[in-house]
Amino acid sequence: MKIHGILAAILFALVLSPSCGSRKQAAYLTVPFSASTNIPGKEYPKINPDLSVTCRVEAPDAISVELDLCNKVYPMVQIEGGVWEVTSDPQVPGFHYYFINVDGVRVSDPSSKLFYGCGLMASGIEIPEAGVDFYLEQDVPHGEVRMQRYWSDLAQTWRICYVYTPAEYDTTPDARYPVLYLQHGGGEDETGWPNQGKVDNIMDNLIASGEAVSMIVVMDRGSAVLANSPDWERTRNIFDFSAYEKVVVEELVPMIDACYRTLDDRNSRAIAGLSLGGYQSWSIGLSHMDLFSYIGGFSGAGMEPSPEKYPLSLNEQMNLLYLSVGTEEPEQMYAGVKAFHDMLENKGVQHLYYESPGTAHEWLTWRRSLRQFAALLFR
Amino acid sequence: MKIHGILAAILFALVLSPSCGSRKQAAYLTVPFSASTNIPGKEYPKINPDLSVTCRVEAPDAISVELDLCNKVYPMVQIEGGVWEVTSDPQVPGFHYYFINVDGVRVSDPSSKLFYGCGLMASGIEIPEAGVDFYLEQDVPHGEVRMQRYWSDLAQTWRICYVYTPAEYDTTPDARYPVLYLQHGGGEDETGWPNQGKVDNIMDNLIASGEAVSMIVVMDRGSAVLANSPDWERTRNIFDFSAYEKVVVEELVPMIDACYRTLDDRNSRAIAGLSLGGYQSWSIGLSHMDLFSYIGGFSGAGMEPSPEKYPLSLNEQMNLLYLSVGTEEPEQMYAGVKAFHDMLENKGVQHLYYESPGTAHEWLTWRRSLRQFAALLFR
Repeated sequence: MKIHGILAAILFALVLSPSCGSRKQAAYLTVPFSASTNIPGKEYPKINPDLSVTCRVEAPDAISVELDLCNKVYPMVQIEGGVWEVTSDPQVPGFHYYFINVDGVRVSDPSSKLFYGCGLMASGIEIPEAGVDFYLEQDVPHGEVRMQRYWSDLAQTWRICYVYTPAEYDTTPDARYPVLYLQHGGGEDETGWPNQGKVDNIMDNLIASGEAVSMIVVMDRGSAVLANSPDWERTRNIFDFSAYEKVVVEELVPMIDACYRTLDDRNSRAIAGLSLGGYQSWSIGLSHMDLFSYIGGFSGAGMEPSPEKYPLSLNEQMNLLYLSVGTEEPEQMYAGVKAFHDMLENKGVQHLYYESPGTAHEWLTWRRSLRQFAALLFR
Repeated sequence: MKIHGILAAILFALVLSPSCGSRKQAAYLTVPFSASTNIPGKEYPKINPDLSVTCRVEAPDAISVELDLCNKVYPMVQIEGGVWEVTSDPQVPGFHYYFINVDGVRVSDPSSKLFYGCGLMASGIEIPEAGVDFYLEQDVPHGEVRMQRYWSDLAQTWRICYVYTPAEYDTTPDARYPVLYLQHGGGEDETGWPNQGKVDNIMDNLIASGEAVSMIVVMDRGSAVLANSPDWERTRNIFDFSAYEKVVVEELVPMIDACYRTLDDRNSRAIAGLSLGGYQSWSIGLSHMDLFSYIGGFSGAGMEPSPEKYPLSLNEQMNLLYLSVGTEEPEQMYAGVKAFHDMLENKGVQHLYYESPGTAHEWLTWRRSLRQFAALLFR
């Protein structure tokens, strides 16, 4: 009887209480529709049923206007009253950066929300994938993405990182959580995973279904310039990220462990990233095995394929090594990651290798990789 | 002795523990410097000691390039190799939206971070105010800005709001907090206060100094379209926000009270906003005195100056009515708010009226207003 009373109370609460996140996704359309990445109320760009994109720009005085979808440039034509239009080839599903070239100046599309990528604020278009909803808002408890400011003594500057906390974080004040450090790619910043990557939806859905354990995800900017560093350090190759590595080890991880209810041992810490961030994650992770025991590289683990860096002792030391790549990525990227995988395989270093079918060097590859990687963590 | 032991432990912790937010602000420069609103690493736009702005854009094939500082358009000139440059008049301190016109097309500056304003992603430039730091990061405990998704049954769509929680929120699991609902202006969205408004710095600093009580601040998008609403409703005047009002009352407030540790009575709720959001706040606040007892309008309270809407009974019913305006705002805005203030004054309706010296219809007026308004709340 007592159980029935409790059940009745729970059902009552479910029916009457406002929820912290519930309900439904938009229907997938089979007619041309405005992209979800448009400024609210903007009709164009539109996505057609064959996944081609129709773009319109008002530029009455321009001589030449082009749609630059990064993989291909499409000249636009004036259709009426200063409005230029073009329809692209069909695009692969996923999130693609794009630009408009106005008389040779590459600018963002005034009709698009903008995303930090390619080293500037870029237009972006989300090409949906029919029937796929693992990165969409679903009727599950929702965690939060929190903006966390912290002072870097090393860089003598304020930094901002984003921190995903799982839905139950605030209501379980005694619980502690493992932490995934998740890096963006080159030309992107700490807003990449929250905005383009839809990290909160992916984690909310995985945790709600029991496919992943509840965890904290930290997304910091993957670069730093140490205070008083010589000029050459400020302009050095992006693949030399020793300054950022110092910030991660000496400042970021301690700050997160101080400010959040973390489990602060290596078995409860993972580091992963995409492209440049994948390279960083493998490099920082393997150099600091006292901190990390799970490492993931999405489209970017294979920069240092020298076999002697990957001894068989890793099989004992690490809980997981993971790498992935999209089948439609540029040949050099695909071949590089694949060769890295083959080398590890030949050496007998245990790892998980995933090829994302039909996706390029873009966010759908990385969303899929995160979904798979996160589900394997902290078991 | 016991006290000494505790003190020693606290001092020890202060010295050795990583902090959740500490230290220093950048020095104010007296030579031309790159704006803090630039994409990291971009030299231009630069702000000169007289607060004029020097802007550069690479556009080798363009025929005409202009800097549009919204209050004035400056033709740019080619200085070398396709680079165009201009230096503006001295600007008033604060945060200003701007655009670049390339052959007549208004686009964002590829060197600037972008901010949702003017109905699209706009370039923005922060003109610092010498010696003023109430909206800068300071060496105080830092709260968080959290992205909260919630489902709207009324609109049949997911919505996102941002929620500021004070620094101690996570470490005081039994405490409950009053809530300020803070609205953006026309052509802006829920990202306005977190990005342009620097709400977290302002609140962190006020709370740390004891000038404001610890509170939660909710920043939602100030518009909504009800599901299945007729077409005319979707295109109606922005000053008819009855659909959004329904969302606030029936969905947003209940969701916040369910998901955060709030004090959920009218004495613990405030609503305020800027420009259109100020008008909304006065209107929604006075229509729902069961929910709100503090109302603020920054540069936008005076849209409905009919005296009969403001009975003397408000003096008993409301804890605070607040309005403000910048002295450099367009004459119509200044005169409108001032007339509203005079009307209330003449009627004997108690309120606080503030003029922000030297600032226009922009974010510095609203940051100052928030600072003053927040300090008066929930006493």
